[in-house]
Amino acid sequence: HGKPVQIVISESEHSFRLNETALENILLQSDIQNKKVVVISVAGAYRKGKSFLLDFFLRYLERNNDKTTDDWLGKDDEVLTGFPWRGGSQRETTGILLWDKPFLCELPDGEEVVVLIMDTQGAFDKQSTIKDCAVIFALSTMISSVQIYNISQNIQEDHLQHLQIFTEYGRVALEDNNCKPFQVLQFLVRDWSYPYEYPYGEKGGADLLKERLEISPEQHEELRQLRQHIHSCYEQLNCFLMPHPGFVVSTNPNFKGRLSDIQPEFRDCVKSLVGSILAPENLIVKKISGCKLTCKDLLNYFKAYMEIYQGDGLPDPKSMFQATAEASNVTAYGKAKEYYSKEMDKICGPSSPFMKLEILKSKHEDIKVESIKQFKTVRKMGGDAYSQKYLEKLTKEIDEAFERYEVENESKNVLNIFR
Amino acid sequence: HGKPVQIVISESEHSFRLNETALENILLQSDIQNKKVVVISVAGAYRKGKSFLLDFFLRYLERNNDKTTDDWLGKDDEVLTGFPWRGGSQRETTGILLWDKPFLCELPDGEEVVVLIMDTQGAFDKQSTIKDCAVIFALSTMISSVQIYNISQNIQEDHLQHLQIFTEYGRVALEDNNCKPFQVLQFLVRDWSYPYEYPYGEKGGADLLKERLEISPEQHEELRQLRQHIHSCYEQLNCFLMPHPGFVVSTNPNFKGRLSDIQPEFRDCVKSLVGSILAPENLIVKKISGCKLTCKDLLNYFKAYMEIYQGDGLPDPKSMFQATAEASNVTAYGKAKEYYSKEMDKICGPSSPFMKLEILKSKHEDIKVESIKQFKTVRKMGGDAYSQKYLEKLTKEIDEAFERYEVENESKNVLNIFR
Ligand SMILES: Nc1nc2c(ncn2[C@@H]2O[C@H](COP(=O)(O)OP(=O)(O)O)[C@@H](O)[C@H]2O)c(=O)[nH]1
Ligand SMILES: Nc1nc2c(ncn2[C@@H]2O[C@H](COP(=O)(O)OP(=O)(O)O)[C@@H](O)[C@H]2O)c(=O)[nH]1
Ligand SMILES: [Mg+2]
Ligand SMILES: [Mg+2]
Repeated sequence: HGKPVQIVISESEHSFRLNETALENILLQSDIQNKKVVVISVAGAYRKGKSFLLDFFLRYLERNNDKTTDDWLGKDDEVLTGFPWRGGSQRETTGILLWDKPFLCELPDGEEVVVLIMDTQGAFDKQSTIKDCAVIFALSTMISSVQIYNISQNIQEDHLQHLQIFTEYGRVALEDNNCKPFQVLQFLVRDWSYPYEYPYGEKGGADLLKERLEISPEQHEELRQLRQHIHSCYEQLNCFLMPHPGFVVSTNPNFKGRLSDIQPEFRDCVKSLVGSILAPENLIVKKISGCKLTCKDLLNYFKAYMEIYQGDGLPDPKSMFQATAEASNVTAYGKAKEYYSKEMDKICGPSSPFMKLEILKSKHEDIKVESIKQFKTVRKMGGDAYSQKYLEKLTKEIDEAFERYEVENESKNVLNIFR
Repeated sequence: HGKPVQIVISESEHSFRLNETALENILLQSDIQNKKVVVISVAGAYRKGKSFLLDFFLRYLERNNDKTTDDWLGKDDEVLTGFPWRGGSQRETTGILLWDKPFLCELPDGEEVVVLIMDTQGAFDKQSTIKDCAVIFALSTMISSVQIYNISQNIQEDHLQHLQIFTEYGRVALEDNNCKPFQVLQFLVRDWSYPYEYPYGEKGGADLLKERLEISPEQHEELRQLRQHIHSCYEQLNCFLMPHPGFVVSTNPNFKGRLSDIQPEFRDCVKSLVGSILAPENLIVKKISGCKLTCKDLLNYFKAYMEIYQGDGLPDPKSMFQATAEASNVTAYGKAKEYYSKEMDKICGPSSPFMKLEILKSKHEDIKVESIKQFKTVRKMGGDAYSQKYLEKLTKEIDEAFERYEVENESKNVLNIFR
C-alpha cells in the first residue's frame, strides 16, 4: 500500500537535509530506476487541505488499475488515508514527503512511466522564515513536472507575489537559461465562492487565471513584470476552482475523510481534477533542460539541487520589511557617502594643490559631520536596528577615505619629492 | 441616515488624492469640530467581508440610542445597507471611505465624543501595487484609534509580514518616536474553523494571538524582530475569532444581508464584537503623540499625512521579488567594484610610484574584465532586467575611477612638477 517518507528533513537552525537513503530506496528500485518519471507535487500555505487532497490522488492511483470502473473515489464511509492530514491551526507536515510506492502508469503510446506523489510543508506557519518557505517551494517546483499551487478562496496579488519570489529562487538555482525552467503550474483555488462569476472546475479556473494574469500596456510595471515572470517560468499554466467541501470537513475535529461527510459538489470536483491530472494523455514526464528524466536521473538532480540550497551561493529571500529597510538604508548611506567624496574632491582631489594637514583635517571634519547628518535625517524604514549598522559603515568608510586623501595630499607636497 | 463618502480618492497613475472639501464637510460641522474623536477603521485583503461587517457597526450606532433594548441587530428580514458590499471576486471599494454622519456617544464619565467609521480599499487586488496597498493601510492606521485588521481563516506569518511593512510605512511617516505610534490593533479572523482549539470570540482570539505573537529566545531573528516590531507599534493588541457566516452569505449572489440568511453563531459573534468595540468604556479617543484629538485636529493631521505620502521623502515598499533582486544585484555590484579598487590600489594607489600610461591602461583593462566577470558569474535574482542596470553602473563607475587613477598617476610624474 505504501507510506509517506520524509525525504527532505527540516532540521534545527532552519536548515534542510536530504534523506538520501530513503530517496534511493524509492528511486533505485530495479524495476523503476530506468523508467521515465512523472512527479506531482503540491505547495502553498499551511492548513489549506493540501495533504487531504493528495490522498485522493493516491486513491486514484491505487484503484484505477481496474479500467472498467470509474468509481475509484470509494465507498461512502471509507476513511481517507495516505499523507497525514488533520484539523486544527498548527502545521502538520514538515519538510518534503514522498509516497514510497511508485505507481506504474501507461502513456497513450504504451510506454510505462512512474508516477510519484510529493507533499510539502505548508508555507507561512509561525516557525518558518521566508527562506525556509522559499527553499521548500523552490525544491518542490524544481523536482516536479506538475506543481500544484494550493490557495484559498481567491487568486490575490500577494499569492502571485509569493509565487514569483519562490519560483525565482528555483530558477536562479538552475544553470540553464535557454528554455522555460518549469513545466506545469496548476493553480488550485479552494473554497471558491463565486461560481456565478467563474464556474467550479477547469474552465472557470482557466478564465479566472487568464483574467488575473493578463498583461496590458496601461498596467503598472510592477504588475506587468510579475505576470511576465510567471509566464516565462512555466510551459503551462492551469487553474481549477474547487467548491467548499462543507462544514464537517472544515470544522469537525472528528471528520475522518468519509465521502458521506463531504459535499457532493466537492466530490465531483475531486473526481474531475484528479481524473484529469492523472489521465494518461495528461501525464507529463519530468524534463530538465529539455531532457526527459528517469527515476535514477531524478535522484541525481535532487541531490544536486539540495546542495545548491545548502551552500551559500544563492541570495537569501527577504521579507518586504527587511528588504525595504535595507534598501532605504543603502540608499541613504550611498547618498551620504557620495556627498562626502564630492565635497572632498572639490577641496583636495587629484587636481587640487597640496594643502596643510590641519586645514585638510578641519575641512574633513566639517564635511563628515554634514554627511552623517544627511544620513540621519533621511527617513528610513526599520528604525535604529537597521540604521545603526549603516551609520557605522558610513563613519568607518569616511575615515578610510580620509586616510587616502591624506596620503594623496602628502604626495603632492613638493618638499617630499626632494626628501 | 448618512452615506459613504470617498475622502481618499485613488487616481490614475497609482496616486492618491485627499477630497478635502468632503472631509471638511464632515469634520468641521459646528456641533462636532471641537469634540474629541474616536475613529474605527478596517483594512485587509479585498473581498473578505470588511464592508459587510462595518455595516453592523453603523447599525449599532444608529439604533443604540435607545439604551433600553439590545436588539439593535435588527429584524430577520432587514436588508443590510451602509458601506457598499457585494459578492464576486472583483474589488468594490477603492481609496478610503468615511461615513458622512458622525455619531455622538457618551464616555463613562459623561463626555460626549464623536465616533467615525472608516472603510478602506482591500489590499492585493490585481490593480494595486505594493505601495498602493501600503499607503491605504498606513493612512488608515495613522488616522484611526482602532484599526481592525481583517484576515481570513487563520493568522499566518504572511499576514504578520504584511502588517509589519504596512505599519512601518505609517510609523516612518510620523515624526515622533517617543511613544508607541498607534493605539488599538484589532485582529479579526473571519471563517475561523477550529473552535475546538480556540473558541470563537474575544477569549479564543486573545489566546490564539498570544500564541502567534509569542517571542522566544530560540526563535529565528527574523521571526522575533517581526513580533517585536508589532508589539512596539501598538498600545493594545486584540483578536476576535469569527465563525463562518454560512453559505448563503459567502456564495449566494442574491444575498442582501438579511439576518435570517446568516448563521446564528455568526450573528451572536457580530453582536458581541460590535457591542464590545463600541461600548462606552471601550471607546478609544484618537491620540497623536500622546494628545487627544478633536475632529478639527484630525482634519489637519489627515492633510499633513496625505502630503507625506504624496511627496517623495519616503522609501517605496517593494515586493519580495523586487527587493531580493535589487539586494542581490547591489551585493554583486559592490563586491565587483571593491575588487577593482583593491587591485588597482595595489598597482597605482597613492603610495605607489608613477607608471607609464600604457602599462596603467592595460592593467586597468585586465582588472576591469575580471571585475565584470565576477559580477556576471555571481547568482543573482531577477534576471537580466535587473542585472543590466547594475552592470552598466559598474562599467561606468570603473571607467570613472580609472580617470581618477590616471590623474593621480600623472601627478606623481616628477617630470610634471618641473613643467
Ligand atoms: N475549508 C476547507 N477545508 C479543507 C479543505 N480540504 C481539507 N480541509 C480541511 O483542512 C484541514 C487541513 O487539511 P490538511 O490536508 O492537513 O492541510 P495542509 O496543511 O494544507 O496539508 C483539515 O481539517 C481538512 O479537513 C477544503 O477544500 N476547504
Ligand atoms: N466567507 C465569508 N464571506 C463573507 C463574510 N462576510 C461577508 N462575506 C461575503 O463576502 C463578500 C464580500 O464582502 P465585502 O464586505 O464586499 O468584502 P470587502 O471587499 O472585504 O469589503 C460578500 O459576498 C459577503 O456576503 C464572512 O465572514 N465570511
Ligand atoms: Mg499537509
Ligand atoms: Mg469593501
